[in-house]
Amino acid sequence: MNASHTRRLPIGVFDSGVGGLTVLRALREALPHEDLVYLGDTARLPYGTKSPASISRYAGQATAKLLDRGIKLLVVACNTASAVALQALQDQMDPVPVIGVVEPGASAAVEARPAGRHLVLATEATVRYGAYRQAILRRDDRAQVRELACELMVSLAEEGWTEGKIAEAIIRRYLEPLADLAFEPDSIILGCTHFPLLRPAIRRVVEEGTAIVDSASTTAGVAAALLAGDDLLNKQQGQGRLQLMATDGAGRFARVGGRFIGEDLDASDIELVDL
Amino acid sequence: MNASHTRRLPIGVFDSGVGGLTVLRALREALPHEDLVYLGDTARLPYGTKSPASISRYAGQATAKLLDRGIKLLVVACNTASAVALQALQDQMDPVPVIGVVEPGASAAVEARPAGRHLVLATEATVRYGAYRQAILRRDDRAQVRELACELMVSLAEEGWTEGKIAEAIIRRYLEPLADLAFEPDSIILGCTHFPLLRPAIRRVVEEGTAIVDSASTTAGVAAALLAGDDLLNKQQGQGRLQLMATDGAGRFARVGGRFIGEDLDASDIELVDL
Repeated sequence: MNASHTRRLPIGVFDSGVGGLTVLRALREALPHEDLVYLGDTARLPYGTKSPASISRYAGQATAKLLDRGIKLLVVACNTASAVALQALQDQMDPVPVIGVVEPGASAAVEARPAGRHLVLATEATVRYGAYRQAILRRDDRAQVRELACELMVSLAEEGWTEGKIAEAIIRRYLEPLADLAFEPDSIILGCTHFPLLRPAIRRVVEEGTAIVDSASTTAGVAAALLAGDDLLNKQQGQGRLQLMATDGAGRFARVGGRFIGEDLDASDIELVDL
Repeated sequence: MNASHTRRLPIGVFDSGVGGLTVLRALREALPHEDLVYLGDTARLPYGTKSPASISRYAGQATAKLLDRGIKLLVVACNTASAVALQALQDQMDPVPVIGVVEPGASAAVEARPAGRHLVLATEATVRYGAYRQAILRRDDRAQVRELACELMVSLAEEGWTEGKIAEAIIRRYLEPLADLAFEPDSIILGCTHFPLLRPAIRRVVEEGTAIVDSASTTAGVAAALLAGDDLLNKQQGQGRLQLMATDGAGRFARVGGRFIGEDLDASDIELVDL
């Protein structure tokens, strides 16, 4: 396969569901000329409460589908899959490069608050795996890290109840134990693709000086730098095409996904694929 | 297979996750001498947001596992699977009888409030399928039925935040549109296995005269009557054995499931099975 062919291939974006559309949105903004193909494994979401073995198996099956379609780069938009299965996916996709969201998120937090106290809000599986903690401490050994599983915030974002008293009360309740531990975070890392939707509510609950870090734009920046470095940017001008695939429930994908991508989606735009 | 052999077989209980343990608990109380084998399809939960085709396929695979083990009756504790796939499961399991939770729940509501206004709280898939509505109207053509998808209440129950201000605020918010419609329910049907845990919070939010109906005990009564009618009750005395199986995450099953069954569970008590 020659380089000019590879340049015209789309970027693959994989997530367990619709949450990764927040990352896709950042990729479109950073790389408007690139074609994008997104696969949400909606038949088997959520990954966040599953075992590492299941997460790795499901992620491997889903990304194989993207590889079959032909992609020049895989972005694992799912924090849980990035935390648990990134190395396995890199081995499987080789020589196609694979980027997860955990390392870019950790970089952004460390840059925003050197030697800081970082609080990672994430799913159960991401917390159990401690991937953010490791990624932060590898970059900054003076950092302190706490990780908090916030499953109810995932449902809040899916239901669209992202602002108001209920959202703020739930966020406050998750943060309560930290006050008892006298852990006042300098940065809050949104370690789940659903949580950027809750950013305004989180902002109202936490101290003004606390940085809120989300990995979507940082990941898009890493993707752009990687493609530029390998001379794989699409030279074609014009808006890149977008292809959306899901493993189940096109109607729900369109309805809930629209909130994440920030535009109306129609069920007929979503291709259902069987893994 | 002779009748005395069949009598000694366990009752199979199937659910998408741990919620069906509320039904298992009612079965143990109604039928203390019976052996019970429970399978929670935790690798693929939740069913409530999936498409009918996926729900039927997953439920079929899971219940085939119970059939292989040998059971004398299958109780489909999952409201979503009962609503979407009961007939298919009955065909598949024949001649083993299959009971769902929707029909017993509808019976209980109609008996509690004849010619009443019934509000069904359930998952998205159960609501979309309208199974409770049909089951109620088949029994009572003067009844009025409204169905409400309450996904966030599932997460509340899983997180264990079943009482207090957050739980009540979420329930109130789901019920708000009904006030605008001037639909004052005579009965509220807990159309998801997770919702019995929220019963006290629901009680505090709704009018005193509103009946709160859950299908767990009614379903156990139907199971007992069916086994007695077919002369399939276990004649052995003593406490029946309980076997718990899950398709993923024994640790989480034990931790969250303990709240549903009402006793502490240990991860080593849960057998992991592959479908």
